[in-house]
Amino acid sequence: MSSRRYAVIGTGAIGGLYGARLADAGFDVTFLGRSDVAALRSDGLHVTSATGPIDVLDVTAETDPGAIGPVDVVLVTIKTTAQATLTESLPALVRPGTIVVSMQNGFGLESGIAEVVPEAIVLGGMCFVCATRVAPGRIDHLDYGRVTLAEHTGDGQPAGPTDAVTAVAADFERAGVDVAIRDDLDAARWQKLVWNMPFNGLSVVLDAGTDVIMADRRLRETARSLMEEVAAAASVHGHPVGTGFVDQMLADTEAMTPYAPSMKLDFDAQRPLELAAIYDAPLGVAARLGVPAPGLSLLAAQLHHLDRMNRRGG
Amino acid sequence: MSSRRYAVIGTGAIGGLYGARLADAGFDVTFLGRSDVAALRSDGLHVTSATGPIDVLDVTAETDPGAIGPVDVVLVTIKTTAQATLTESLPALVRPGTIVVSMQNGFGLESGIAEVVPEAIVLGGMCFVCATRVAPGRIDHLDYGRVTLAEHTGDGQPAGPTDAVTAVAADFERAGVDVAIRDDLDAARWQKLVWNMPFNGLSVVLDAGTDVIMADRRLRETARSLMEEVAAAASVHGHPVGTGFVDQMLADTEAMTPYAPSMKLDFDAQRPLELAAIYDAPLGVAARLGVPAPGLSLLAAQLHHLDRMNRRGG
Repeated sequence: MSSRRYAVIGTGAIGGLYGARLADAGFDVTFLGRSDVAALRSDGLHVTSATGPIDVLDVTAETDPGAIGPVDVVLVTIKTTAQATLTESLPALVRPGTIVVSMQNGFGLESGIAEVVPEAIVLGGMCFVCATRVAPGRIDHLDYGRVTLAEHTGDGQPAGPTDAVTAVAADFERAGVDVAIRDDLDAARWQKLVWNMPFNGLSVVLDAGTDVIMADRRLRETARSLMEEVAAAASVHGHPVGTGFVDQMLADTEAMTPYAPSMKLDFDAQRPLELAAIYDAPLGVAARLGVPAPGLSLLAAQLHHLDRMNRRGG
Repeated sequence: MSSRRYAVIGTGAIGGLYGARLADAGFDVTFLGRSDVAALRSDGLHVTSATGPIDVLDVTAETDPGAIGPVDVVLVTIKTTAQATLTESLPALVRPGTIVVSMQNGFGLESGIAEVVPEAIVLGGMCFVCATRVAPGRIDHLDYGRVTLAEHTGDGQPAGPTDAVTAVAADFERAGVDVAIRDDLDAARWQKLVWNMPFNGLSVVLDAGTDVIMADRRLRETARSLMEEVAAAASVHGHPVGTGFVDQMLADTEAMTPYAPSMKLDFDAQRPLELAAIYDAPLGVAARLGVPAPGLSLLAAQLHHLDRMNRRGG
């Protein structure tokens, strides 16, 4: 059995859910967090899930990365709005050959991580999951849960199923996580954006969950048209999301438990929105390639304004 | 001097402002209204304006169109959300040859009016004006004020400067209104929509006035891109708005007194939004012609949802 040691940066829905599954499966997992660390140490980590509850009573959690030291695998699960903090936290957790998995939303995150820790192997981990942190150490896992893994290459070419991807995938599977391995990280990132760019943004602008958007013919067609703009950019970028993918994602969203995307939760809590990673970076790629994305650009402009007003307190 | 008798349907910003100017210039003007009629009768009609105040102390106002009877010119200034009420109010005011001017925002309004009163000559009157009704009989005229007049023809062909247009234009000019005569009603309607479709909608979705939109580079470019979608539809429709028109409207908006468009005021007051006339009708024309309008379509879908939630009280 693998004896890989894990560090999880972030104690939110993603870090809590997948960290709990790994810990529950017997892996050595240490959480790096801030305000939630005390609660994790004293009360443990608890996940309610349609697939059964997980309760990790003995949680190792630190606020200082130096207290953890280099590990085999780092799962990066913080909001991308805090991406700059990785220059402080990541180096202490990484030695040559450490695998760092960005389990975040957005485009181009892996190349940023590779700049911070060039000695690491960097993966993208796209989480197709509905989960919410309801309190420190308390995660509601509502629906889905698949993680798609692919390795970052400096040149944007597909890496194929590398040793690092295979190793992490094996651990995740042992922890009961549904895993898919992808050759092409950029294609997998675009696939995730096909959902995130329409639904995150619309949920904020419309003050509505996925169920409201899917129940209204006009809004559903709006979401589809935005998804197709993402798919068009992916194709021109040379990383197509695949035929029928938009339809599949719409069907999945239709079947989904009514859900407020993370950006909606961030907005309601007056936290900064992940606009740089989820909108500006992919729209920058589209613009560079000359792919029109009028709906997405409008949505992004609206979100930047609403985010600014929201954090100003109105 | 003309002795044309006027009826003004509606006592809001447009009806109040232009009705007051005509009455102040000595025309026989009767207002058809509802809740504001009592105040108009007792306290008169008062307009504050950069070009000097207008106070009409002796106002004729009715709630029953039968009490007015047929007139020479009817100015229709109600919200298009109440357009169905014209089947009750218009016929009593019209005899063969009566001129009916739709001084409203949107597309296709004149053909609807022509169906209700086929014996009338129907004009469009596009008001490029910033004005607000602050209380019954009290209008703030903030900026601009030009009215563009053009005659409706059943076949969408330019009517040219007809007798009816020339007559109303002469009266408006005598009342101190800046008037422009246009041959082509549809082109004039599209010109108005070049402003209305972007700025009305964005002001609602962003909870922002024109000054906020123009001050932000990203939002200004968003507005420009939406304006260009309108201009593209106008061109394919065979009624181009003219070279440089988008730039001119942006420059005018930049120079404008900070202003909340009427749709924003409607939204804040939880009144229904004029979406059928300002968005659905022109977008229907664009769709029929196969002109893509992705940004406008997204904005319209958002507005329909927000309008529905807003009127539901959240």
